[in-house]
Amino acid sequence: MHPISVIHSPFIDKKQTPIQPTRSQAVGQVEVFPEFAAGLQDLEGFSHIILLYIFHQSHGYTLQVKPYLDDQLHGLFATRYPCRPNPIGLPIVRLLARRDNILDIEGVDVLDGTPLLDIKPYVPDFDMRTDTHCGWYDNQKNRE
Amino acid sequence: MHPISVIHSPFIDKKQTPIQPTRSQAVGQVEVFPEFAAGLQDLEGFSHIILLYIFHQSHGYTLQVKPYLDDQLHGLFATRYPCRPNPIGLPIVRLLARRDNILDIEGVDVLDGTPLLDIKPYVPDFDMRTDTHCGWYDNQKNRE
Repeated sequence: MHPISVIHSPFIDKKQTPIQPTRSQAVGQVEVFPEFAAGLQDLEGFSHIILLYIFHQSHGYTLQVKPYLDDQLHGLFATRYPCRPNPIGLPIVRLLARRDNILDIEGVDVLDGTPLLDIKPYVPDFDMRTDTHCGWYDNQKNRE
Repeated sequence: MHPISVIHSPFIDKKQTPIQPTRSQAVGQVEVFPEFAAGLQDLEGFSHIILLYIFHQSHGYTLQVKPYLDDQLHGLFATRYPCRPNPIGLPIVRLLARRDNILDIEGVDVLDGTPLLDIKPYVPDFDMRTDTHCGWYDNQKNRE
């Protein structure tokens, strides 16, 4: 695993950083390293992209965590908690524009300088499910 | 990066394997290694999960590819082609049941024995976008 890019964002402190891209309108840039730039051709036709990045400021993990949205312990894999055995995040962000190897994106929820492993186009035919239920997360929302 | 689990599926040959989980009703099992089993608590409340796995049968990559859905070359990062600098797949599958450290899943599109890096609950609030367009993929569908 080796980064193909670095993400530039307004967030230099974990405490300021939004928890999920759906809660952020922040704008940032994905700077793809020049040797991978040819792989971006036609990406600009997609409105949204999936970023696979490393939570590079997360160290260690425990298997039971209290997510920020709830006050109960849950299994780590039943949450989106960033400290994980393989700490990879996968936000969906809006692609505003591509300028050669630079992608302007909206909905950034990561720290400035975050290393990126992959970029994939968001395709609802593959990536969307509607007949869902969400366990503790639904229960927490119903309590709100 | 070290696997937390292995995926058991009916597919032992790349040629038989469905391209995307939305095109598969195949049933399989995620066998989470016992040392990570405590992290699965409450996952059974979610109808769908995201699997982050390694395309372990993919070797090397090129930056321009012809995806199976089109006859034109596109940048690798504008496709879901499996041969990538960091070959990670992220299918969403239906979680049928959890039996201790075994997850029964539906919609498997991976080879038997695929190593798994992470499991995340699928949460539409975070993972769904509806106001999308999809470049060459939309054009290809319109031609069908």
